[in-house]
Amino acid sequence: MQIAEEPASPAPAIILVEPQLGENIGAAARAMANFALEDLRLVNPRGPWPDEKAVAAASGADFVLEKARLYTDLREACADLNFVCATTARPRDMIKRVLTPESAVAEILVRKDAGQRSGILFGRERWGLENDHISLTDAIVMAPVNPSFASINLAQAVLLVCYEWRKQYAGQSIGRHTRFDGAAGEGLARAGGRPANRAELYAFFDHLEAELDAAGFLQPPEKRPTMVRNIRNMFMRMEATEQEVRTLRGIIASLSRSRKERPK
Amino acid sequence: MQIAEEPASPAPAIILVEPQLGENIGAAARAMANFALEDLRLVNPRGPWPDEKAVAAASGADFVLEKARLYTDLREACADLNFVCATTARPRDMIKRVLTPESAVAEILVRKDAGQRSGILFGRERWGLENDHISLTDAIVMAPVNPSFASINLAQAVLLVCYEWRKQYAGQSIGRHTRFDGAAGEGLARAGGRPANRAELYAFFDHLEAELDAAGFLQPPEKRPTMVRNIRNMFMRMEATEQEVRTLRGIIASLSRSRKERPK
Repeated sequence: MQIAEEPASPAPAIILVEPQLGENIGAAARAMANFALEDLRLVNPRGPWPDEKAVAAASGADFVLEKARLYTDLREACADLNFVCATTARPRDMIKRVLTPESAVAEILVRKDAGQRSGILFGRERWGLENDHISLTDAIVMAPVNPSFASINLAQAVLLVCYEWRKQYAGQSIGRHTRFDGAAGEGLARAGGRPANRAELYAFFDHLEAELDAAGFLQPPEKRPTMVRNIRNMFMRMEATEQEVRTLRGIIASLSRSRKERPK
Repeated sequence: MQIAEEPASPAPAIILVEPQLGENIGAAARAMANFALEDLRLVNPRGPWPDEKAVAAASGADFVLEKARLYTDLREACADLNFVCATTARPRDMIKRVLTPESAVAEILVRKDAGQRSGILFGRERWGLENDHISLTDAIVMAPVNPSFASINLAQAVLLVCYEWRKQYAGQSIGRHTRFDGAAGEGLARAGGRPANRAELYAFFDHLEAELDAAGFLQPPEKRPTMVRNIRNMFMRMEATEQEVRTLRGIIASLSRSRKERPK
């Protein structure tokens, strides 16, 4: 993994999960450069890295590729972010907010002004993101595609988000529409300090799921993955602050304590 | 030249002038299909036509390629159109209106309602459109690119226009993307049944707070009202469904069970 400086840009991180083709990574880097985004993160690229095909497809956006950070774990790639969206071409069987590229960027801008950092996940070329990936995110982003031909090329999907970012960040009126522009956003800030970052949320999930395993709740084993995803989705929607995550962990610890203290 | 039926779609024609790479033509066709545009016109493509590389890059958008019309003359390609825009990455030394993809599509929509047909020109991969081409058009379209990295891939440029078309034509640019409106609401209904009613939520709060009292979490007593309010607020934001409230109650019961089973 490269150690990179914190990017100066307020633009969201573009996070490619298990990208397969260097050409697409390069084309995504070019699209980012076209709209002045720089923070590219790669989670387990399937091919070699660095990749000559990526450099060729970047058409001069080498500076984005050279600064790209490599991760082996999606959680690590998102650890410093406060708001993460997952792009999908089709609706998933999950209860999660659905945004357009436009409304996602509007929300990212409002959050940026509140000092928060955001990222957008893009899945593999053929399959998109797995539900396990999506369950770790705050919202889904779906472009308004033709339902009968919904599969967008990876770099094209990156482009749409970058374009919306530039359009709105470059001074067109921002953010009229999200729940964060008015009372809700201010309310969030007023009420409890900064939103939890991903590392805090994931640690909470680890804690909760370990206790639920110990209590025998996540049974039978074949249903465990779905149960875990559903629970994570519920708590992701809460959009908890750092303080609230501490409260949640206190609740879990408090309710669970007696089990540990129980005489054997 | 193929003889094609007049497309039924009111979407603008996408006109590629002297495209060099079949891959880009195919990727442009895919982008068009993603946003339900069908009228592709090619003016003097530099490679063979039809082109296997175009078909491969179209990823299933063959129907756009098959209906594509070939022209040897830009004027002929635009003959049936009432309004034609030229995309450029850099300003030209011409006196001509400059539009964004967004404003160009807005104008195309107004003209469509007046019975007019429109088209958008895209130039060669390296050079873009020649000034002679541009002089035949009504307006210039420039995406809000990073001036220091302005060169957009041909298919990416096509995508931006198609995306704006779909967004505006489908009425999706109209804001209000809160979690309470259409998309998110439908997602909620699809995935998990009806939202919990107040009675179910309050019963959950009673359950949770009773267990937290029993575990000694809501201490000291003078802080209890604030703690309870904060916890309720967190869970209210989750906007849980009926099923999810049952899951939450299962979690509380499971984590707490051992305390009750503990020998006195």
